[in-house]
Amino acid sequence: MKIVNVQLQNRSYPVIINTGNFQNLGRHLHSLDLGGDAFIISNLRICKLYGTKIKKALQKSKIRSYFHNVKDTEASKSISAYIKTITKISKIDTQKRLFLVALGGGVVGDLCGFIAATYKRGVPYIQIPTTLLAQVDSAIGGKTAIDLPSGKNLIGAFFQPRLVYSNISLLNSLPQRQIRSGLAEVVKYGVIVDDRLFRYLENNWKRVAGLDKNSLTYIISAASAIKAKIVAYDERETKGLRTILNFGHTIGHALETATKYSHITHGEAISIGMVGAAEIARELGILSPNTLPRITSLLKALKLPVKASGIHLQPILNAFARDKKFIHGRIRMVLPTKIGHVIVTADIPLKVVKKVIKKLAG
Amino acid sequence: MKIVNVQLQNRSYPVIINTGNFQNLGRHLHSLDLGGDAFIISNLRICKLYGTKIKKALQKSKIRSYFHNVKDTEASKSISAYIKTITKISKIDTQKRLFLVALGGGVVGDLCGFIAATYKRGVPYIQIPTTLLAQVDSAIGGKTAIDLPSGKNLIGAFFQPRLVYSNISLLNSLPQRQIRSGLAEVVKYGVIVDDRLFRYLENNWKRVAGLDKNSLTYIISAASAIKAKIVAYDERETKGLRTILNFGHTIGHALETATKYSHITHGEAISIGMVGAAEIARELGILSPNTLPRITSLLKALKLPVKASGIHLQPILNAFARDKKFIHGRIRMVLPTKIGHVIVTADIPLKVVKKVIKKLAG
Repeated sequence: MKIVNVQLQNRSYPVIINTGNFQNLGRHLHSLDLGGDAFIISNLRICKLYGTKIKKALQKSKIRSYFHNVKDTEASKSISAYIKTITKISKIDTQKRLFLVALGGGVVGDLCGFIAATYKRGVPYIQIPTTLLAQVDSAIGGKTAIDLPSGKNLIGAFFQPRLVYSNISLLNSLPQRQIRSGLAEVVKYGVIVDDRLFRYLENNWKRVAGLDKNSLTYIISAASAIKAKIVAYDERETKGLRTILNFGHTIGHALETATKYSHITHGEAISIGMVGAAEIARELGILSPNTLPRITSLLKALKLPVKASGIHLQPILNAFARDKKFIHGRIRMVLPTKIGHVIVTADIPLKVVKKVIKKLAG
Repeated sequence: MKIVNVQLQNRSYPVIINTGNFQNLGRHLHSLDLGGDAFIISNLRICKLYGTKIKKALQKSKIRSYFHNVKDTEASKSISAYIKTITKISKIDTQKRLFLVALGGGVVGDLCGFIAATYKRGVPYIQIPTTLLAQVDSAIGGKTAIDLPSGKNLIGAFFQPRLVYSNISLLNSLPQRQIRSGLAEVVKYGVIVDDRLFRYLENNWKRVAGLDKNSLTYIISAASAIKAKIVAYDERETKGLRTILNFGHTIGHALETATKYSHITHGEAISIGMVGAAEIARELGILSPNTLPRITSLLKALKLPVKASGIHLQPILNAFARDKKFIHGRIRMVLPTKIGHVIVTADIPLKVVKKVIKKLAG
């Protein structure tokens, strides 16, 4: 077991990375004293696999469990799912104090977190991320949101969980493609701030992809520690530092939008986006030699795409122009200079971006 | 002009109590540097009366105004009004940085504040309260909320404004009954913590009710200072202190629910609720002599009701049982012991409450 602390004064909380059968979950919850009723938001697949185990672990600490399943798709981040879930919560919220549990991936975490932030002006919640992507990224940091027809993540809040409980055993039931999607974010952490983590992946990618427990514990702990540090310094993304987490995401988001989120996972989009950002850095002459081949080699080894073959250029450029990071008509991106170091720049010529996207799509 | 500061570390903000023509509003906004686009949520009546003045004041500081009117009824605290308003905001939110302005009473303040708390995970907002009730109470303290069919104020957030700009001139257009509704909350502050304010009202109620500028400035400043102090100590209502602001509200809310919010203003309900709480305190033998007659005399002088004549007993008792303050089957209320002092107690026998409510309804 590893514990990483997210230091945020009176909103600090631990990220617990462990294996096993949830034996210690009840004990941790008991010491947090969040309440006697746990309203657990999950999805059917996860609930079937782990529901009973978690219910039992909570029972030991005299916590009653109420399960509420939502579909594991972006549709569950809708206003209607939000209202439906809150209405259900308000019906069981009577005697004991209540807290929420996000038992799922990014969708469940975002929905549950936003409900926790806004139900009765805020109730405690914990994250039990069940995907690698959520364990290394979305479950940590308190970014919560749901979608409106007029925009993805248009409403949300910064609202920190009281505990992130990352159990590696949960990853065993995950499809390989989902694992790879999470690994793309781990590669990202390596490129932006941690050359040691990057080298570890270069040397151990086989063990990691094979879900070796020790390797997973190492990379999830390392990723969690990086995310925790960045969030502690720049909780509400006002100081510029949290921006570096967007490395690979500008082109990545454009790809996701252009493909309407089908045929491509978040991690696959980010993988191509990281290659694109590195290509742009090389075009601008700020990338140290050998960095681009090292990034592409590692991504290829992890069976992540490095090209957006077959995707049309124009929709990507259109999506790009609509992206939030496209400020005042200038293109703002996080670019690597070497493994472990990035810069944020707002002055990239559109010409260079077009050239690189053309190359990626080619 | 008086300035009261709400001390909340990096979330501190001033409450400015002044008269005149909004001349200094632009200057204050300029120094706050909230952005170049002001999205002003208001209602038609207020917008017609003050829209142009405010637009001009903002123009002087190179801030562009966008007005969006909602109905001045509880219906505007709905999910549909929330989504409609956010969709409109997202359409004008393009180039310059954007902030929100709540120009109205409690409904507009609650809706605008909750949008500010959740639109893109939080944007700055200011309060320009246009009712006495909002100036002395709801505009200060960051409590924001909207309603769901399953409950009033069921979703919301604690989200502090960056400025509360209380202009007394705004009150001139207010119906007398609305003024009295606000005065009930001022009486409340006197009873809970400030015997000096209470005595001021006893000696100056005629001037206050006649909207004398100096008297209004005095009572609004005093009330704002009390609210600011309580909020600074207990921002999220976790330390027990903010609870004392609920004096008069337990029976008051029950009355509002029982009458379905028609025929009775919030202040009128609170007025009767304060008399009820004082009666209960007297029944329990904890109220110092002369306190109850002083409270009822002052409320009567201000033309506020001290009895709920004609209202049926049973709906009040039912509403009472559903109230949030009715914890674990015990009745929790704020009770006065003398002018300027209250206690919070959770052990009131139901018998006593019934007796007093019967008396109020009789």
